[in-house]
Amino acid sequence: MSSSSASARSLTRTSTEARSAYPTVSTMISPEGSLEVLSQFEVNRLRDTSSTGLHETLRRCALAILTAGALSDNAASMQACYPDFDIELLQEDKGLRLKLDNAPANAFVDGEMIHGIREQLSAMLRDLAYVSNELVSQGAESMGPSEAITNTVFQILRNANALNAHRPPNMVVCWGGHSISRVEYDYSKAVGYRLGLRKRDICTGCGPGAMKGPMKGANVAHAKQRYDNSRYVGISEPGIIAAESPNPIVNELIIMPDIEKRLEAFVRLGHGIIVFPGGVGTAEEILYLLGILLHPANQHIPFPVILTGPEESADYFRQLDDFIAVTLGETAQQRYQIIIDDPEAVAKAMQKGVDVVARFRHENHDASYFNWRLHIPYDFQQPFEPTHEAMASLALHANQPVHELAANLRRAFSGIVAGNVKPNSMAAIAERGRFKLHAAPDIMTHLDALLNAFVEQQRMKLPGTAYEPCYTLA
Amino acid sequence: MSSSSASARSLTRTSTEARSAYPTVSTMISPEGSLEVLSQFEVNRLRDTSSTGLHETLRRCALAILTAGALSDNAASMQACYPDFDIELLQEDKGLRLKLDNAPANAFVDGEMIHGIREQLSAMLRDLAYVSNELVSQGAESMGPSEAITNTVFQILRNANALNAHRPPNMVVCWGGHSISRVEYDYSKAVGYRLGLRKRDICTGCGPGAMKGPMKGANVAHAKQRYDNSRYVGISEPGIIAAESPNPIVNELIIMPDIEKRLEAFVRLGHGIIVFPGGVGTAEEILYLLGILLHPANQHIPFPVILTGPEESADYFRQLDDFIAVTLGETAQQRYQIIIDDPEAVAKAMQKGVDVVARFRHENHDASYFNWRLHIPYDFQQPFEPTHEAMASLALHANQPVHELAANLRRAFSGIVAGNVKPNSMAAIAERGRFKLHAAPDIMTHLDALLNAFVEQQRMKLPGTAYEPCYTLA
Amino acid sequence: MSSSSASARSLTRTSTEARSAYPTVSTMISPEGSLEVLSQFEVNRLRDTSSTGLHETLRRCALAILTAGALSDNAASMQACYPDFDIELLQEDKGLRLKLDNAPANAFVDGEMIHGIREQLSAMLRDLAYVSNELVSQGAESMGPSEAITNTVFQILRNANALNAHRPPNMVVCWGGHSISRVEYDYSKAVGYRLGLRKRDICTGCGPGAMKGPMKGANVAHAKQRYDNSRYVGISEPGIIAAESPNPIVNELIIMPDIEKRLEAFVRLGHGIIVFPGGVGTAEEILYLLGILLHPANQHIPFPVILTGPEESADYFRQLDDFIAVTLGETAQQRYQIIIDDPEAVAKAMQKGVDVVARFRHENHDASYFNWRLHIPYDFQQPFEPTHEAMASLALHANQPVHELAANLRRAFSGIVAGNVKPNSMAAIAERGRFKLHAAPDIMTHLDALLNAFVEQQRMKLPGTAYEPCYTLA
Amino acid sequence: MSSSSASARSLTRTSTEARSAYPTVSTMISPEGSLEVLSQFEVNRLRDTSSTGLHETLRRCALAILTAGALSDNAASMQACYPDFDIELLQEDKGLRLKLDNAPANAFVDGEMIHGIREQLSAMLRDLAYVSNELVSQGAESMGPSEAITNTVFQILRNANALNAHRPPNMVVCWGGHSISRVEYDYSKAVGYRLGLRKRDICTGCGPGAMKGPMKGANVAHAKQRYDNSRYVGISEPGIIAAESPNPIVNELIIMPDIEKRLEAFVRLGHGIIVFPGGVGTAEEILYLLGILLHPANQHIPFPVILTGPEESADYFRQLDDFIAVTLGETAQQRYQIIIDDPEAVAKAMQKGVDVVARFRHENHDASYFNWRLHIPYDFQQPFEPTHEAMASLALHANQPVHELAANLRRAFSGIVAGNVKPNSMAAIAERGRFKLHAAPDIMTHLDALLNAFVEQQRMKLPGTAYEPCYTLA
Repeated sequence: MSSSSASARSLTRTSTEARSAYPTVSTMISPEGSLEVLSQFEVNRLRDTSSTGLHETLRRCALAILTAGALSDNAASMQACYPDFDIELLQEDKGLRLKLDNAPANAFVDGEMIHGIREQLSAMLRDLAYVSNELVSQGAESMGPSEAITNTVFQILRNANALNAHRPPNMVVCWGGHSISRVEYDYSKAVGYRLGLRKRDICTGCGPGAMKGPMKGANVAHAKQRYDNSRYVGISEPGIIAAESPNPIVNELIIMPDIEKRLEAFVRLGHGIIVFPGGVGTAEEILYLLGILLHPANQHIPFPVILTGPEESADYFRQLDDFIAVTLGETAQQRYQIIIDDPEAVAKAMQKGVDVVARFRHENHDASYFNWRLHIPYDFQQPFEPTHEAMASLALHANQPVHELAANLRRAFSGIVAGNVKPNSMAAIAERGRFKLHAAPDIMTHLDALLNAFVEQQRMKLPGTAYEPCYTLA
Repeated sequence: MSSSSASARSLTRTSTEARSAYPTVSTMISPEGSLEVLSQFEVNRLRDTSSTGLHETLRRCALAILTAGALSDNAASMQACYPDFDIELLQEDKGLRLKLDNAPANAFVDGEMIHGIREQLSAMLRDLAYVSNELVSQGAESMGPSEAITNTVFQILRNANALNAHRPPNMVVCWGGHSISRVEYDYSKAVGYRLGLRKRDICTGCGPGAMKGPMKGANVAHAKQRYDNSRYVGISEPGIIAAESPNPIVNELIIMPDIEKRLEAFVRLGHGIIVFPGGVGTAEEILYLLGILLHPANQHIPFPVILTGPEESADYFRQLDDFIAVTLGETAQQRYQIIIDDPEAVAKAMQKGVDVVARFRHENHDASYFNWRLHIPYDFQQPFEPTHEAMASLALHANQPVHELAANLRRAFSGIVAGNVKPNSMAAIAERGRFKLHAAPDIMTHLDALLNAFVEQQRMKLPGTAYEPCYTLA
Repeated sequence: MSSSSASARSLTRTSTEARSAYPTVSTMISPEGSLEVLSQFEVNRLRDTSSTGLHETLRRCALAILTAGALSDNAASMQACYPDFDIELLQEDKGLRLKLDNAPANAFVDGEMIHGIREQLSAMLRDLAYVSNELVSQGAESMGPSEAITNTVFQILRNANALNAHRPPNMVVCWGGHSISRVEYDYSKAVGYRLGLRKRDICTGCGPGAMKGPMKGANVAHAKQRYDNSRYVGISEPGIIAAESPNPIVNELIIMPDIEKRLEAFVRLGHGIIVFPGGVGTAEEILYLLGILLHPANQHIPFPVILTGPEESADYFRQLDDFIAVTLGETAQQRYQIIIDDPEAVAKAMQKGVDVVARFRHENHDASYFNWRLHIPYDFQQPFEPTHEAMASLALHANQPVHELAANLRRAFSGIVAGNVKPNSMAAIAERGRFKLHAAPDIMTHLDALLNAFVEQQRMKLPGTAYEPCYTLA
Repeated sequence: MSSSSASARSLTRTSTEARSAYPTVSTMISPEGSLEVLSQFEVNRLRDTSSTGLHETLRRCALAILTAGALSDNAASMQACYPDFDIELLQEDKGLRLKLDNAPANAFVDGEMIHGIREQLSAMLRDLAYVSNELVSQGAESMGPSEAITNTVFQILRNANALNAHRPPNMVVCWGGHSISRVEYDYSKAVGYRLGLRKRDICTGCGPGAMKGPMKGANVAHAKQRYDNSRYVGISEPGIIAAESPNPIVNELIIMPDIEKRLEAFVRLGHGIIVFPGGVGTAEEILYLLGILLHPANQHIPFPVILTGPEESADYFRQLDDFIAVTLGETAQQRYQIIIDDPEAVAKAMQKGVDVVARFRHENHDASYFNWRLHIPYDFQQPFEPTHEAMASLALHANQPVHELAANLRRAFSGIVAGNVKPNSMAAIAERGRFKLHAAPDIMTHLDALLNAFVEQQRMKLPGTAYEPCYTLA
């Protein structure tokens, strides 16, 4: 340093602990990209959006994005840490401005918002506004209800610039638990690395764990391969974004209006799916996927599915595989591969699978960016409301087409997830007792075994707490 | 998967251990960038280069680059693991081709070399060829010997496309040990992250430890800031590249012909320097830097220097600081700041310092990309050969200009490093006994204390081995 | 040539005349850009569009674009030359394909459509589809009728990617006749050249004459200045595109749904307007512009307007200027400059004017890409239907606000244009006699003089034919 | 305009004639591109360059570039119009600055130099400096004299960034006269247009006429095809640049040190050559080309050559063709095609020819950017000094290999060109009488006929002046 700074020298020790635990910044920012050129009318509508019921959603999503880089993964506490945070939309002739009050200081550098976070904030705003405004006015009279939902998914994705006619098929969707072991996390990173070396893009559901590992791994590999335009697509939903903040690597954040459209976005956008270990929620996702792929209309459509994990998770997949063998049979098993402890083999198998998809799309003149051809039955597009009655009346027997059994099993798992963690369902169980599931004897036996295994592997609840089942098998 | 792949299913377990420990690939590749358009005459010269004495250098450097991503950092063993590796340059009308035999398979994906590694290989070839061929023939009759060396440094950097007239000053050089503790490594990452958030480029000496941490941290921050054209410059040297492989993040690899030109490249290219903890080698680098900055010709040239580390390394810097205070005085101390355990403060101080540099260069119509104005005395550009005689006759007393004392102290440290690790010097010591250093009493006392502290902190040798000093203070 | 082509040698003479006068090509092409990612639903709608009443519009516009490079400017004959030309929209899963039958061969090179023409074709399709489909369903309940029209103009322009928040204000709109003298055409080129040297973008109404000259001139200057992202915006309308094919330089073709929205697009998009000589239509445009700029709400909004032409056209502008002085007064004259025979002065004056606009927008936080602040009265947004009754009842006297008189004078000129060239009006005149215009005596005198001057200057009809007036002044 | 500019209004008439005929600007500019990062040593050398004998060359070339856009093509007068123009190179730490005194104002817009002109100025400086400095010091001991010249050509082209390993072969060289008729000029434009539609790059010798037409035509077509990275390479030489200013379209200006290296650059860089009508100089170029292509070493190397012109120039080519048939025979004729009055056929034939070249290079692993394989005999690389003695002793008879006869005929034409226009030769002829050429009788007859035809077609001198032959046939 030149002598002018001499007065500053001496052993400086600034302890970060000495500062406020949750410092904040209040500022104004301009959004980016698709929100840059808005009509005065649209700015008004957006402000209406935020001044009515949507404001709380907006605030919660914004806070999730602004705290994404923070150390704690506990969403509730994050929200609690910034009780005074607020976001307001202001109108200027030029367009929209965002007024942030008491925003987490971590999202800023020297008073300026981190660019990636500003992008994610704009993306969130874009999707909330699009869904609440645009879609209402677009007539879909001429479409059936299922087509209309698919069309909505398409429009949201396109509005988010997630559909690109010029990219080859290379989007690998990664599913799996968000609170997994360190070994499992590192394994998901290794798989992401191997996919990244092969210049695959990654799509996950945002959040930590198996959602973050593959992106981190791919990111390093993409740098090595000088693969510049890599896509890290995070598809979230207003109800879960607070719990699963988009990690900073996500450079395309998309917020779908509900869980079912989010699932549909995954299967229409992805060219293959890798499932890492998780809990009963991950099992539900696998059954959702099998329910669709086993539908007769989809039997000739290629779609690579790989279940994988480190040696430690071999049991998880073996039990799932056994359960699927008994309930849905060999046809279902043919729809996926299980690869244990071999990231290289996973990446190679996925590459092979995606090549088949690419060829299929090309031969059928299908779009590479959206899987129009895949039939998703209307049932799958509808939320399942797990009341005691609905759970009790699920048809869990072999006397039905296999894809319908898959759908019903998925509903059963969905109900158990809800009974474990969702306030509504937990309250209902507290009042009326456990959900009762009626299943054919053979299915009953295996379902019981599978669920017990999940309990034993601590996949039903956070480690360290005793699991109190929310269901009984009748 | 479509049914065609049904036969492939079953619980696949491929163990990586089952394969050969060091699988290899033999192949032909074309170089990139500046080597793409060569004249037939130049290809011939390059081949001559590799067919004569330079071939072993070429082979060793290539292997270092090809094994960069590997897990082990032990260079000697790396070289030993691929005894059959060879590289040959072939001529085609079109230009140059590289024939690789038994190259580490890790550098390839599905038979294709990883792009970043191919770039580094081309960069290495570019520099070896440039230095051995071009520079010889360029007359420097009209320049003094010091100017001629500076000009060589300039030409190598320009030939490597490392000089860009359009980028603002933002290159932060990071120095420090390559075998540091996990806490120190993580700290260097945190500092890199904070620099990256401020869109600073990073330049280090390649290799692990404090050379890699800042780049990794900056890489994550650059992604968050969508800072696309980030530069990760690694400046190496044929003698050390094998021990300090360029990490995969390095996207500009430069190989300087010797240690002194490498040091000069750092100070001419960088706009500020951060020094992380290291051993006696790091102390040597600090004295090199002070020797230059204390030269009267440089007294008005701003150049931010920050010494920093986690709480654990506070002692290291305190002792160094004390030693400098006693030997070189307050003027020397004013040339650097010490900041302990505060990455944010480091980044802010560096930013402030670089801003001063930017203003200074602008006001003086200096180039932003090369610090022409800094005077580096000819002595500093020459290697110091630490014979017993040279060590014994070092003038270590206050009776000389402070920058000359700094230069002599640097030589003393340099000799100790050599006595510790360099085969030649170790042999000489085995034969003739320890180096004898003659110093004025006050300097002697503090030098003794400093060196003893290094010994205690295990910074003289690898942890776990007892340190046998290679010097005595007379 | 190698000897293999030896047989081909000899004095080859292929006469272009020997081939068919209007060779055609039938082929299939894919559209570009915004039409690449369409939903199945949208492709269906587009096909519906083209299978109903819009098909003839689509066909006519397509043919205009495909014949743009042709030598003849006679639209009617162009259409007649390709009687079998047809265009059909086909649906594939991947999106839209265009089937072209008997398309002009000039639009193709070795069987492949010229890229710029393919872009213009896609742009046309984009606008026709957007206007006929999207805009219908978008509720504008909350807006007044004038705001709704402005909003429509905004949406069409944005959908055409014509609004960019990142470009500085530099769009110069050029108006003037499409059948002007060679001297006038060359002058418009010279002005375009001087604008281009100053890195201005050009916007015109498509077609030849004063619409093409400035673009050609600017194109050469942009090349000299290495100004790469130059915009040549052509704003057309289905009713006139056939007569005024987009010249090949236009790289942003926009088709507005009607004449009034086209005029609004010019004044909202442009940052200044240059008017070259033309006929009575050009006079109408000047009065449209003055009618807006003289509105009290717009009196403080800067908007540079320059009337210019070579020495030969000095009279045209002097007469117009005199007429404006008498009818609208000095305030109106202050809204424009007249510069004769000095392209450099025009470019400098425009630059100065645009700088004022830029400063004004910046100070008022206005958008740079769309002039929201300019008030365009509802009357100006409505077509004027020149029946005998409407013409006879025009209030052409000084007893009204000056901007209303400007509006009425503009209607008078509009009616005369229609009476000269539009089939409907010509038929009405044939049946009921000339339009009768009632004007206050002083206005009458000057209007008569102005119109007579236009007749004398051959600006009412094509040169060489005697002009039979379609109006009488009562 | 806002009212603030009201005072400026009134009928402004600025006559360009009223201003000084040759207004000038004095200013300082920084060079671009490869001159941006120079060492202090290099800046010194460049300044030395310009302070010694090279200064006049530098000044003359600079003025040629600065006046390129001017209307007059008369070089001598251009130089005379700016007698006070001077250029000086100044050194700053940052690099080089150019001081221009009394430079033509046309090269500036509002005081700033037109970007393309600044680029050309930097390119000129780059080449002059490179040739006078770099090349001297590069040892070429190991090469033969012919290889050394080829290597120099290669190095100059590479230093000018004219060699790109990633572009496909598509460089079409256009030769022909610089003072041709309007019909011939328009024809060359039409051919350029057809080449441009096929995305061919154009290389010419700079200057007007057949050098400019093809570039202008290609430029329009490239815009239509949205072919963004088009190359317009102009290869000039210090002795002719003043007479043939680079037209503004040239975006890669290269100045070769002498005429022979310029010719070699054309044939090594181009993938095909089109020859438009010209005078005896053009005939000389054709014979140069045939002399090379007829060399036994080149007989299997494909290289498309097309002679073309409008109907009006059919005779020129027929006479040349006849002369070649008689002197060099059918083998020579097989090396070119003549196509009269059919631009489309020319473009198609060239495309076919270039495709053959591309295939040949690919199959032989040859570079696409430099025709190494073509053998150019040492004789062709040497200037021919047309003294009376040299002319008289030319061997113009069939008793030698055909490529040697071609070389000698080329020398004869070269001498006649010199006798017509070069001061030295004209003076020698004035003193010693006409050159005497000795030829075998049959060659004599046809040579006489050809030269007489040139005289009749006014291709020997400027139209309107009587031609006084500078030779006699003995």
